[in-house]
Amino acid sequence: MKAYPRCAPCLLARVHYEATLSTDDPELQQRAVQAGVRWLDDSFSINTPATYISTGIHRRAYEVLGDEDPYAAKKKMSNEIALKVLPMAEKMVNEDDAFRRSIIASIVGNTLDFGVLGFEPEERFDVYLMDVFKKGLDVDDTDKMKGLLDDVLYIADNCGEIVFDGLVLDQIKRLGGKVTLVVKGAPILTDATLKEAEETGISKKADRVLTTGSNAVGVDLDEAPDELVKALKNASLIISKGMANYEALSEYDFRPIAYLLRAKCEPIAASLGVKKGWNVAILYAFA
Amino acid sequence: MKAYPRCAPCLLARVHYEATLSTDDPELQQRAVQAGVRWLDDSFSINTPATYISTGIHRRAYEVLGDEDPYAAKKKMSNEIALKVLPMAEKMVNEDDAFRRSIIASIVGNTLDFGVLGFEPEERFDVYLMDVFKKGLDVDDTDKMKGLLDDVLYIADNCGEIVFDGLVLDQIKRLGGKVTLVVKGAPILTDATLKEAEETGISKKADRVLTTGSNAVGVDLDEAPDELVKALKNASLIISKGMANYEALSEYDFRPIAYLLRAKCEPIAASLGVKKGWNVAILYAFA
Repeated sequence: MKAYPRCAPCLLARVHYEATLSTDDPELQQRAVQAGVRWLDDSFSINTPATYISTGIHRRAYEVLGDEDPYAAKKKMSNEIALKVLPMAEKMVNEDDAFRRSIIASIVGNTLDFGVLGFEPEERFDVYLMDVFKKGLDVDDTDKMKGLLDDVLYIADNCGEIVFDGLVLDQIKRLGGKVTLVVKGAPILTDATLKEAEETGISKKADRVLTTGSNAVGVDLDEAPDELVKALKNASLIISKGMANYEALSEYDFRPIAYLLRAKCEPIAASLGVKKGWNVAILYAFA
Repeated sequence: MKAYPRCAPCLLARVHYEATLSTDDPELQQRAVQAGVRWLDDSFSINTPATYISTGIHRRAYEVLGDEDPYAAKKKMSNEIALKVLPMAEKMVNEDDAFRRSIIASIVGNTLDFGVLGFEPEERFDVYLMDVFKKGLDVDDTDKMKGLLDDVLYIADNCGEIVFDGLVLDQIKRLGGKVTLVVKGAPILTDATLKEAEETGISKKADRVLTTGSNAVGVDLDEAPDELVKALKNASLIISKGMANYEALSEYDFRPIAYLLRAKCEPIAASLGVKKGWNVAILYAFA
């Protein structure tokens, strides 16, 4: 996916947000924002892949902030809360139509910003989850995914969310498939790395765990280990979680690939041909 | 007021917004956003007056868009809706404590984005207005303003809002004062110019109408007519409506000056020493 005009203010707002997570010093916050502005001035265009711009802007902000992981505390809290909610979600998934429901739980996991703005997940997570179980996904290709589970490459997204990804991993194995889990090679935004995959116990549910090889937003093949490139080519199904992985992987032609996400912004929704706010499990079987 | 780090993404988001108001062409939208990014790269610093940055960014965007007034339709709608609500607001103001209530109505006029996001002003305006009448302003220096109404300079802000400013003008005259109304010299954002002051009939309520001499955000004295500079020096009271006029006039030492606004963002709230969301009528009597 290429960048949209509205990506520029959104990325800059995110840089400001991570600056406030990292420091209370307005001068340092300003320098991070200025570094972001400079990078946008150098790179921003609607002909440029969105993740090229986002990877660059966050790397520059992290460098100015002298902070490898401004979201560290937020990530930790997300995992803790998700692990608390997990038994309830697991029970609800296993009651009926478990593969589809596990996908839904993992998408709802992508929806909720745990620990943000007074949100109380114990109260609302089950309500929202049950709501999406009832009304269904807005695009639902889960049935078509079922026949492609032999050797799945599962590309994870955020902390917190990854705990619910574990429910999908369970279902893939229950249905006789193998699964390779992919996490980020180094901290970026709220994304899960090897550290969090291990701390949450999710890495144990996979037959193999790979990383993207770097802290690039989504996946940057120029920075990815050969093993991951091979796995992308050979997987019976790639499952890609969240918006940033969609932005990155939609620039390549790997097939079959299923994108599981909530379309939280207009550009992603427009690129996918869906509406903002939709919960989407969309399969691209052929290039 | 100097710029805050978070002003940068906010300004860029506003540029994107006005680009979408002006054109459906994503390439032209992109060029407006890029021009904004370039200007931020040139000008953005927390030592720079906020309105220097905002005036520059919108002028560049308007130029790229080839559009003198991207908000024209929105301004027109705001005035129409405000005029529809006016008789009800006027009745409520005159029921009790009319000077204070007129100030409150003009601040509530600053609060509401008429015609935005499905807001239905006929239904909610009276409820919100009555609510603020009841609970009062969060900072209320209206009593101190009453003794300073001999020769008021009233610096207006947005279309729609200006209709309710007329209620304050009525009260100033009722209390024996004279009033000079100041509107923008040319279109900028949703601000009222001479055209809208006349179309709404508000200009007739003033003893004299001046303009800021340009489309600068707030007031830029380098671009203002001598008459306005004199009036700023000689007024018995300056009443400044809205955030942008505060950002601009707080860079100077004109006194006494009353700022009437809702603090819609953190930087303004921090600069004024109030909380975000507060309705404020604050008087600075001495430099």
